[in-house]
Amino acid sequence: MLLKIDRMSSDPIFKQIISEIRGLIDQGWLEPGHKLPSTRALAEQLGVTRSTVCQAYAELQALGYLQSRPGSYTTVQQRRKEVVYNPIYHSLIDWKKAASIEAVKLHEIFLGYAPERSSDPKGKDIPYDLTSIAPDPRLYPLADFRRCIHLVLLDSGAEALRYGSHKGYHPLCEYISKRLRLHGISVSEDEILITSGAQQGIDLIARFFGRQGKAVIVESPTYPSSIPILQFNGLKLLDIPMRSSGMDLNSLEKALSGEKVAFVYTMPNFQNPTGITTSHHHRERLLDICLQHKVPIVEDGFEEDMKYYGKVALPIKSIDDKNIVIYLGTFSKALFPGLRIGWITADRELILRLQAIKRFSDLTTNHLAQIAIHRFCALGYYDKHIQKLHRVFRQKMEAALSCMKSYFPSSMSWTHPVGGYTIWAKMTRRLGEKELDALTIPYGVKVSPGEYYFPRRAPSEHFRISIAHLNKEEIQEAIKRLGKALHKFF
Amino acid sequence: MLLKIDRMSSDPIFKQIISEIRGLIDQGWLEPGHKLPSTRALAEQLGVTRSTVCQAYAELQALGYLQSRPGSYTTVQQRRKEVVYNPIYHSLIDWKKAASIEAVKLHEIFLGYAPERSSDPKGKDIPYDLTSIAPDPRLYPLADFRRCIHLVLLDSGAEALRYGSHKGYHPLCEYISKRLRLHGISVSEDEILITSGAQQGIDLIARFFGRQGKAVIVESPTYPSSIPILQFNGLKLLDIPMRSSGMDLNSLEKALSGEKVAFVYTMPNFQNPTGITTSHHHRERLLDICLQHKVPIVEDGFEEDMKYYGKVALPIKSIDDKNIVIYLGTFSKALFPGLRIGWITADRELILRLQAIKRFSDLTTNHLAQIAIHRFCALGYYDKHIQKLHRVFRQKMEAALSCMKSYFPSSMSWTHPVGGYTIWAKMTRRLGEKELDALTIPYGVKVSPGEYYFPRRAPSEHFRISIAHLNKEEIQEAIKRLGKALHKFF
Repeated sequence: MLLKIDRMSSDPIFKQIISEIRGLIDQGWLEPGHKLPSTRALAEQLGVTRSTVCQAYAELQALGYLQSRPGSYTTVQQRRKEVVYNPIYHSLIDWKKAASIEAVKLHEIFLGYAPERSSDPKGKDIPYDLTSIAPDPRLYPLADFRRCIHLVLLDSGAEALRYGSHKGYHPLCEYISKRLRLHGISVSEDEILITSGAQQGIDLIARFFGRQGKAVIVESPTYPSSIPILQFNGLKLLDIPMRSSGMDLNSLEKALSGEKVAFVYTMPNFQNPTGITTSHHHRERLLDICLQHKVPIVEDGFEEDMKYYGKVALPIKSIDDKNIVIYLGTFSKALFPGLRIGWITADRELILRLQAIKRFSDLTTNHLAQIAIHRFCALGYYDKHIQKLHRVFRQKMEAALSCMKSYFPSSMSWTHPVGGYTIWAKMTRRLGEKELDALTIPYGVKVSPGEYYFPRRAPSEHFRISIAHLNKEEIQEAIKRLGKALHKFF
Repeated sequence: MLLKIDRMSSDPIFKQIISEIRGLIDQGWLEPGHKLPSTRALAEQLGVTRSTVCQAYAELQALGYLQSRPGSYTTVQQRRKEVVYNPIYHSLIDWKKAASIEAVKLHEIFLGYAPERSSDPKGKDIPYDLTSIAPDPRLYPLADFRRCIHLVLLDSGAEALRYGSHKGYHPLCEYISKRLRLHGISVSEDEILITSGAQQGIDLIARFFGRQGKAVIVESPTYPSSIPILQFNGLKLLDIPMRSSGMDLNSLEKALSGEKVAFVYTMPNFQNPTGITTSHHHRERLLDICLQHKVPIVEDGFEEDMKYYGKVALPIKSIDDKNIVIYLGTFSKALFPGLRIGWITADRELILRLQAIKRFSDLTTNHLAQIAIHRFCALGYYDKHIQKLHRVFRQKMEAALSCMKSYFPSSMSWTHPVGGYTIWAKMTRRLGEKELDALTIPYGVKVSPGEYYFPRRAPSEHFRISIAHLNKEEIQEAIKRLGKALHKFF
């Protein structure tokens, strides 16, 4: 057995012996059953200490290359080879068959899923993309955040990088509870659970209620990423039409009388996609109906901080004196979506139960991100940032609406949101996703087809415009171009 | 109607009008139906412009305080009051009844759950806590990490703070695929999905297979936080006893012949809690059995990088030529647990399906953490850190085992791990959690009772010692004290 040992190499000798012998075996030079020299003999041959050879043999034995019985020779062992990556390998398992029915359905939805590209930036080839509802990264308060994270890692670096509490970072919960008072919501810290974004909030709630064939009531249209996860968790969707004033409450009453409903999912402010904000009166009536049927409300306050015109009612949670409202909040829509920090505010008995699911599903939310966001808020940077966003978005929304008035066909109509990011436009006929793309993309513009947002997907008269991602001038140009495209058609 | 307006205040006048009128209504001075002065009259009275009053009335209307009909007076509206936090409020909803059966069970487990306090630091009053398997924060490479995160925020701050890809940050996937080759695993980036820690990996896999009444095979004892989440996802546990060589493979064969099994969950290296590492031969046989039954293996490589003695076989995944092994990896056990970065490596068809579940459950994993860890690894800091850990942990493990030999009763026995963090000790009789605490805590020491780790929980002869969290000297002192306590009893 001839081994090449390089005494000048930085690799230790025992590692060189290992790799040489592995090579000889892997290439078939030493076959299973082949007797190796004794450690003493090999040590003499190579001019190294016997312990070096012993170390190499021991590791080769652990790796399954060698076998040695006490008082006997060391021999080469029959061993499966390490697999080398091969792009055409197929699995022995048919994953589709192995999956639960729900997982198969979710995978199918995922493959055809186009809405909310926010989370998977694509379509960069389209210069005027009005589809993303992720805030414009050019508005990020980067320098302030950099300062915060630097301070956090300096003061409490080790603390910030270890496991946090399952409930969330306590000072952040305190801050959120204080800040919610600005929106009329009065809760204690133990009614707050930090989540990896509001999406995880929806999932945790669905996992809590799910799997009993219960129904969940959603608005139609609604936030499209909620639909697949509600269904995945075994909930049946009942869709209630949106009117210009919000969810149709008469239909809601009817639906609640007929079915066992786990909860009602609603976005009272700047609803996604319609941009509709409900009145205080609508919120009271919705609450009354749900109180009467003892059905919880999941209030998605994803853009609570984006009330840049001021004329918005307080959250349903603020008037919920029977603790039936489960409120979802997030830092993703006004601050940094990539940090994935959201929260659930609800009755503490429910929070404890959701915490149990969170604890066993991913232990805790990223601790550093929570501490850094808390620092950012505590130093007043968050308020400052929100004020800036309000200034910018008031201008963007005004520009968008006024351009639509100037450039869109007069046969069209659209919502006039009092905040948030999205406008819902109505054409005079139904257009599918492909038809709409074919109409607008030649003009370098992309909007989100209405069909994405209806639980029962079908071509729709609507499309959604988001003002989140582009700046004012880009929005103006986008809408001008969109107007040209629409005029050709309507 | 008398309003106090302070012209010197930094609050805008219209906000002062709003808060004054809200106060009068909330305190009952203005009752529902009360007619408000016209905007013109109030403007004159206060000496402000009419538009200021209009702005205030509009916002009060949105908040549900006022009602105004065109051509008529503005009146006070009947309105639910905002709820003030009251610690004794109960919910109208009985959450226990509203929950799914699985959620009720999970909550009960959560309430009584004591193992793996790692993620919820408690028991700081016990000076020698041998329970946590979170790495000692004193070993964190803080300065290097601070440099990385600073660089990331400087070069690509906005990029790092926006939504990332659902699959995970691509350069991190590339790095992981490269690094896995060190462990004999050859996979492409599209066979990797980044998760929020390995715990989320287990949950995603369980969600994929779950809900068909299938069984899952676990080692007994096993990682305790896996049990509740497997059950929550509708999987039935079949426990196979651990021998000194690893999972009993004869029992495994029997179990696979009798039941429809979704997957086999195993930790071949430094098993938690036993510290047992299986041989290459054991891994081959386990793979052969599962290939024969076409049952996937979930290989939890949570401490793959903690092979500080070198004598460890390569992962089962390295010899899996039929793509049936689903491999879980994590940065939590060697680097920063609070960043929650782990990954799943498996057949790309399965990865795509797990990605679908991940996408709808929390969109993406924290983007900044992924980019910062990638930078840390790419600059060579991770390798450097692992080398340091190996040096430190070799010493800690040697110290622990040698102290156990010196100070433990001779009637006891324990495992001799070749890496990782945990040692499994056996007493001469069964002790429940409380009895064991009563024995050791007076000596200032805490260990993890064996009963935590058995799927069928019952007092056990075993306890687990973790060397992760304390330094060498602390471990020596802890074991000396533990020896004293045990001598009193055995």
